Amino acid sequence: MDKTAFFRMSSGLYIVSARDGMERSGCVVNTLLQVTAQPAQLSVAVNKDNYTADVIRRAGRFTAVVLDQTSTLESIGRFGFRSSRDLDKFEGIPTGFDEAYMPYPTEHICARFSCRVVETVDVGTHLLFIGAVEEAEPVGLGTPLTYDYYRTVIKGGTPKNASSYHGS
Amino acid sequence: MDKTAFFRMSSGLYIVSARDGMERSGCVVNTLLQVTAQPAQLSVAVNKDNYTADVIRRAGRFTAVVLDQTSTLESIGRFGFRSSRDLDKFEGIPTGFDEAYMPYPTEHICARFSCRVVETVDVGTHLLFIGAVEEAEPVGLGTPLTYDYYRTVIKGGTPKNASSYHGS
Repeated sequence: MDKTAFFRMSSGLYIVSARDGMERSGCVVNTLLQVTAQPAQLSVAVNKDNYTADVIRRAGRFTAVVLDQTSTLESIGRFGFRSSRDLDKFEGIPTGFDEAYMPYPTEHICARFSCRVVETVDVGTHLLFIGAVEEAEPVGLGTPLTYDYYRTVIKGGTPKNASSYHGS
Repeated sequence: MDKTAFFRMSSGLYIVSARDGMERSGCVVNTLLQVTAQPAQLSVAVNKDNYTADVIRRAGRFTAVVLDQTSTLESIGRFGFRSSRDLDKFEGIPTGFDEAYMPYPTEHICARFSCRVVETVDVGTHLLFIGAVEEAEPVGLGTPLTYDYYRTVIKGGTPKNASSYHGS
């Protein structure tokens, strides 16, 4: 098996987040996908070691934002390379709330979604959440950030909890 | 809900295919995703109305190829807008076979995968197949075709069975 084959798959970069009581958590993923149109459903794979997987499971809901090309190593690093166990990642940055009061970052994004989890599939290292979309809106006019653009232009790395991590 | 938000998600374009006995089937999807790295697993959502969903279910396996930018409306149309019920889509085009003798197209691609289905999730209009990757290889040096490139440069349409179809 030649793992470089996986680098030829395309994806965007997203932040998924949720709140349970006073705890709120979010992380960067490249695994958000629209699985059906009628009704609209999204799926997202989140590493079980990520605190966000825990919070989504308890909340039964998640928000997801589509990052745009104005994203920086710093704005992505806050959500991508630190743990919500150690800090409130939303502290000090512009934060929006959906109708269920789930938080989401409002900067460097070009769309946002709110989902109710309808099924959770254990796929080993990750939980795959299937979510019925309850809110969806484009935000601004930014260009969606692809994982490829992030790696080649922003020169960003991949955290080892990622579905697409291929380091040693 | 503003469905234009979904257009801001990024994806590649892929052909998934399978064989059961003498029947072979394949279709174009933009729903292939790497869900885990250790071990490597892919997921793919296929519309239940697509003959390919049937054949994958019976075969318990699928192949997936990553289309590259040399793809044309014609090469994509063969797999995207016709049904394997009516014709053998592999008839007359260069076809490769994996170790389980599952077919895959060998032109206009830059990577290929072979998966054994480990779980099938019914998500409504679509089946979501989770596959353990048994073979993976990059093919040639082509640039992966994104769904965005397909729509904006190749000027391609979206079949109504697609997860991302938003027509009326």
